[in-house]
Amino acid sequence: MITSESQVIVRYAETDMMGFVYHGNYFAWFEIGRTDLFKSLGISYKELEKQGYRLPVLEVSAKYLRPAFYDDTLTIITTLCDKPVLRFNLKYEIKRGDELITTGTSTHAFIDATGHPVRPPSWAVERLVKAFEI
Amino acid sequence: MITSESQVIVRYAETDMMGFVYHGNYFAWFEIGRTDLFKSLGISYKELEKQGYRLPVLEVSAKYLRPAFYDDTLTIITTLCDKPVLRFNLKYEIKRGDELITTGTSTHAFIDATGHPVRPPSWAVERLVKAFEI
Amino acid sequence: MITSESQVIVRYAETDMMGFVYHGNYFAWFEIGRTDLFKSLGISYKELEKQGYRLPVLEVSAKYLRPAFYDDTLTIITTLCDKPVLRFNLKYEIKRGDELITTGTSTHAFIDATGHPVRPPSWAVERLVKAFEI
Amino acid sequence: MITSESQVIVRYAETDMMGFVYHGNYFAWFEIGRTDLFKSLGISYKELEKQGYRLPVLEVSAKYLRPAFYDDTLTIITTLCDKPVLRFNLKYEIKRGDELITTGTSTHAFIDATGHPVRPPSWAVERLVKAFEI
Repeated sequence: MITSESQVIVRYAETDMMGFVYHGNYFAWFEIGRTDLFKSLGISYKELEKQGYRLPVLEVSAKYLRPAFYDDTLTIITTLCDKPVLRFNLKYEIKRGDELITTGTSTHAFIDATGHPVRPPSWAVERLVKAFEI
Repeated sequence: MITSESQVIVRYAETDMMGFVYHGNYFAWFEIGRTDLFKSLGISYKELEKQGYRLPVLEVSAKYLRPAFYDDTLTIITTLCDKPVLRFNLKYEIKRGDELITTGTSTHAFIDATGHPVRPPSWAVERLVKAFEI
Repeated sequence: MITSESQVIVRYAETDMMGFVYHGNYFAWFEIGRTDLFKSLGISYKELEKQGYRLPVLEVSAKYLRPAFYDDTLTIITTLCDKPVLRFNLKYEIKRGDELITTGTSTHAFIDATGHPVRPPSWAVERLVKAFEI
Repeated sequence: MITSESQVIVRYAETDMMGFVYHGNYFAWFEIGRTDLFKSLGISYKELEKQGYRLPVLEVSAKYLRPAFYDDTLTIITTLCDKPVLRFNLKYEIKRGDELITTGTSTHAFIDATGHPVRPPSWAVERLVKAFEI
């Protein structure tokens, strides 16, 4: 199990007329979470894309427990439960201080530029294996 | 079971650098779907808000089966399975012609302006009951 | 001078906590306007991209005269003043019925896949010339 | 003249199929810039809203000199040229290192909850006056 933390400050643009963050905008935060989790392992998603890999989103879900407000400082806690093979799952928690406001999940696949499922590149696998051994 | 259909044409703004629609943007389409479903029953969500009701999103999920591309004409099929009480669930299918590209779900609650759960207003309940009787 | 009209219904996702449409969201509507203007001339922007052309935005501006609200039906009036050469300008008016709510401008260039300025393809030029002759 | 600096890391969600940041997404960054500029003066926009003030956007413009890419670290330089009275103007520069990639402007008004133009509250005026005296 590998975990990382990221922070966001809620943008005005992310709210809607209900007065708090629009539910569809959390998915961009989950993405920040997984970008940072991979960075913490020495894996740059930008670099993966340059090498011809893609990590499309196959499934997502979110549960909204409490609203998030403009200018709130939020922590995104991202967890990778298992070593990624062809598919892998991530879990997310969004917190404001100690208060849990949203949870979520996402499922991804590694594909190549032609859209076919592939294993992640060996350099990335090595870093993942190492991270899971610690 | 009540169903409605809506159409969207994919905006350039809705794509990302992977070359197709960003996964987080489907939730605005699901919302168009439920706005139209309620309109088809004579229930305006705008009017509900004016009367002090809110319908926040409690949970969402989506499965992405195929990518959606810029300028695609898509059909959003929205289904309300049961009569809304305090909480209710909606299902979504996004199709490009006959091709199913995305499915999704959402769960909502009726709350009042102070954030407390309430039953939907009687005029809306009547229209819903009538729709389920047909 | 070539003009086209498009319609949008304001999405909940497009509002912010001020209770009306977020100012940054008008640019996606201007884009719908120019997509439709080109379509009305028989020029598909999607087709232009497939042929290797890009039309990046060089400049934009908007003046917000009145707010636009959730579920409003708005008309986007898009005007191409001059025949596009390397660069061209578009003007936009957003109306709710007869009421003008926003005006805007955008400037674009034709570039090729390597990012260099190019003239638009001859088939597109022919359609533009013909449209300006009418 | 008062200036502040903010940083953003480009989100995947902010790109479009042209491979770089969608032009409409810069306006959320300009907003981060002005939120931070006011914060640096001890003026919280959130607090202003709680006290019944609104700062709607009357006009915006942007010039895109170079594209911004996913995962780029960008600096937003925000400048308030004159003391805000009923209306005020801000200027923006977005830089990637020393490279200027976008410039912009915005014009705002102070209004009250009923939509009428008002002077900013005295506590905010004092902080602004003080900042301009330094």
